[in-house]
Amino acid sequence: MDSVTPATRMASVPFSGIRKIFEECDRLEAEGEDVVHLEIGRPDFDTPKPIKEATATALENGQVHYTSNYGIAPLRETIAKKFETENEVSYDPDGEIVVTAGATEAIFVSILGLINEGDEVLLPDPRWTYGAHVELAGGTPVSYELDPEDGFQPDLDSLEAGVSEQTKLLVVNSPQNPTGSVLSRERAEAIRDFAVEHDLIVISDEIYEKILFDDATHHSLASLDGMHERTITVNGVSKAYSMTGFRLGYLGAPPELIDPIIRARQYTTTCAPSLSQWAAVEAIDRDPHGPLVEAFAERRERVLERLDAIDGMTCPEPTGAFYAFPTIPDGFDDEEDFVWSLLQEAGVALVPGTVFGDTGKGRVRIAYSNSLERIDEAFDRLEAWL
Amino acid sequence: MDSVTPATRMASVPFSGIRKIFEECDRLEAEGEDVVHLEIGRPDFDTPKPIKEATATALENGQVHYTSNYGIAPLRETIAKKFETENEVSYDPDGEIVVTAGATEAIFVSILGLINEGDEVLLPDPRWTYGAHVELAGGTPVSYELDPEDGFQPDLDSLEAGVSEQTKLLVVNSPQNPTGSVLSRERAEAIRDFAVEHDLIVISDEIYEKILFDDATHHSLASLDGMHERTITVNGVSKAYSMTGFRLGYLGAPPELIDPIIRARQYTTTCAPSLSQWAAVEAIDRDPHGPLVEAFAERRERVLERLDAIDGMTCPEPTGAFYAFPTIPDGFDDEEDFVWSLLQEAGVALVPGTVFGDTGKGRVRIAYSNSLERIDEAFDRLEAWL
Repeated sequence: MDSVTPATRMASVPFSGIRKIFEECDRLEAEGEDVVHLEIGRPDFDTPKPIKEATATALENGQVHYTSNYGIAPLRETIAKKFETENEVSYDPDGEIVVTAGATEAIFVSILGLINEGDEVLLPDPRWTYGAHVELAGGTPVSYELDPEDGFQPDLDSLEAGVSEQTKLLVVNSPQNPTGSVLSRERAEAIRDFAVEHDLIVISDEIYEKILFDDATHHSLASLDGMHERTITVNGVSKAYSMTGFRLGYLGAPPELIDPIIRARQYTTTCAPSLSQWAAVEAIDRDPHGPLVEAFAERRERVLERLDAIDGMTCPEPTGAFYAFPTIPDGFDDEEDFVWSLLQEAGVALVPGTVFGDTGKGRVRIAYSNSLERIDEAFDRLEAWL
Repeated sequence: MDSVTPATRMASVPFSGIRKIFEECDRLEAEGEDVVHLEIGRPDFDTPKPIKEATATALENGQVHYTSNYGIAPLRETIAKKFETENEVSYDPDGEIVVTAGATEAIFVSILGLINEGDEVLLPDPRWTYGAHVELAGGTPVSYELDPEDGFQPDLDSLEAGVSEQTKLLVVNSPQNPTGSVLSRERAEAIRDFAVEHDLIVISDEIYEKILFDDATHHSLASLDGMHERTITVNGVSKAYSMTGFRLGYLGAPPELIDPIIRARQYTTTCAPSLSQWAAVEAIDRDPHGPLVEAFAERRERVLERLDAIDGMTCPEPTGAFYAFPTIPDGFDDEEDFVWSLLQEAGVALVPGTVFGDTGKGRVRIAYSNSLERIDEAFDRLEAWL
C-alpha cells in the first residue's frame, strides 16, 4: 500500500522523549525489576475527598450528556470568579472562558486556531511539548532561552534574537516545566513590553500556579497593563488537586481570540467530560491544594539536600512546580548516556534534559511527584551506582 | 492589535450550523418559550446503572491519574474482544487500538495524522462535521453523494468523479448521520473495490453501529477482504449506552496507520478520561443497548407515521441511527426559511439539511432522540402551524 505513509508533517512530530523512558520502565518492570519513578510529572495522591464526592453526586444526578462546547455555566462562573479574585484578570463567563479536555487541549486548540502555515511561535527552551503542538498546526517553533545562570528566567536577548515578521505567538510557562522556575515580576513586565512592541499574542500556561515554595509569587501575565487583550490564560485542575485523569483544563481570553479558538475546539473533542466539569466546580471553589503543596515542599527540600551531596549535580533552586533540572554528575559527558545507564543498571528513572530542548544539554529532569521514601531510595541507588 | 486575526484556515472552519439552532433555542427558552428539541443527536436516557456503578467504583479506587496515550490495558482488551466477536476484525490490544476523548477525537487525530497540506479527502454528502476536521488538518474535502433515490446509499459514479491523484482518504459512515441509512453489503463491497483500486485509506465511522431497525445488518468495512490493512475503524460508547458526556471513543487500525495517529494523539488530550475508560470496560463488556434501541425503534415508527400525514415530507425509511432526513413540506422552497420560521413561530427545533452538505437542499434532519410525547407535540405544532 503506497498510501500508508504518514503526513509529512508527522515526521516533525516525534514520540515524546519521556515516553521512551516510560516504555523502558515498562519493559524492566515486566522483567520483575523495581524501578523508582522520578520521570513522570503526575501527582501521586488520590483526588481530595470533597472533589470525589462532587463527582459521585454528578454521576448520580445523571450529568452524563454532552455539554456546551464552552463548558457548563456553573463551571465557567466558578472559573471567572477564580480569575478575578486570584489572578486579577476579568473574563466574562459567557463567551470569554472555554473548558477543555485538559490544559493540553487548551494549548493545542489555541495554537491551532491562531496560527497559519508558516507562522513562527516563540517557545521557551527548555520546555514541555509545545513544539509538537506548533508542528501539528503547521507552524514553526523558534526557541528562546531560559538562562540557568539567572534562575532559568527568560533571556531577553534571545527573545529579541528569535522574533521576526513571521512571529505570531509567544508561549510563556510559569511555574515552569522542566526547570521549576517562577517568572519574576521584573521579567514578566519585560515580556509584556516585548509582546506589546512586537504585537504578539501570548499563551500563558499557568497550570502549576498553585505549586509555589518559599516566598515565590505567581504573576498572571494577563493582569499586566496592555496584556489582557493579547493573552490566553491557560490553567486546569490536574496538578494542584491531583486530577490528571479527569482531563479538565480551561482558558480565558478576550472575544477576538476566543472566536478562532472555539471554532477549532468544537471539532476536537466537542466538550470536556461532563463529570469532570462538575468535579472541577468543587475543586476550584474549595481549592484544597494546601496539603499537596506541603508534601511537595518537603520532597523538594529532600531532593535539594540529596543533590547537594553529589559532585556535579547543581541547579538553581526551583521555586515552583515539582521539578528540579540539575546538571549531571561529574564524570559524565552526555545526559542520555547517564539516564539510560542509571535506569538500566540501578533502576532509577529520570528524563534527559535534551528532551526539553537544546539548553537541557548536560542536565536531567527530576520530578519529585513521588514519596520521600522513594526519593531517598532513588538517591541511595544513584550514590551507590556512581 | 493587528495580530488578532485568526489563522486563515479558520475561515473554512465555520461554527457548526447545528450550533446556530442551539443558540436560537437558548434565546427562546431564556424568554420563557417551550421549545421541542428534535435538533440534537443526543440520547436522552440516563446511562445504564451497571455502567454508572463501574464508574463509581473506579472513582472510589482512585483511578484518577493519567493513563497511557493508548488507553488502559483492560479497556483495550475489551475492545479487541468486541471487534473480534461482533465485527470479525482482529486488532492487537497492544498497539492496534487507541482510546480517545470521544469518537470525534478518534476521527480528528486520524485525519490529522494521515493527511498532508493539500491532500484530498472523500466525504459523504450529506455528512456530519468531517469537513471541518479535514480543513483543520490543512486538507481539501471532496464530496461524494448519498443518493436519496437509492435509500441514501453511496453513489458510485460520484465517488469515481471525486477521486484524483491527490485523494488520500475516504470517510464512510454507517449507520449514517444525518440520513439514518445503513450501508448495504453490496455497496460495502463496491466501496472496498473502489478503495483498493485507488489505494485509499478508509476511515469507517461506526459510532451508530448498535442502533439498527427491522432487518438492517451492520458491516464493518475492515472485515472485508483487502480492507483490514487500509481501514481505521472508529467507534465509541456515546450513542448506544447514552454516555455522550463521558467522552469515550476508540479506533482500531493496523500498526502502519496507528503510528502517525498516536503521534498526533499524544499531543491533543494526552489520554481519555480515566473514569470514562473504566466505565467503558463495563459498557462494552455488558453491552446493555437493548432497551435504548427498542425505545428508538418505537420513536422511529411514530416519526414515520407522523411524516406520512404531511404533504411533501418524504424520505427513504431510515434503518439505523436515530435520524430521519425528509424533504420539507409542500409550499416551502427553502429549508433554512422553513426551519427558522418553524422554530420561531411554533417552537419546534430541526436542522436545515444544507448544514450537512449540498444534497441536503430541500431537506431537514429530525433527531428522534426525544420522548414519544415530545415527538407528538412537535408534529402537533407543525401541523397546526402549516
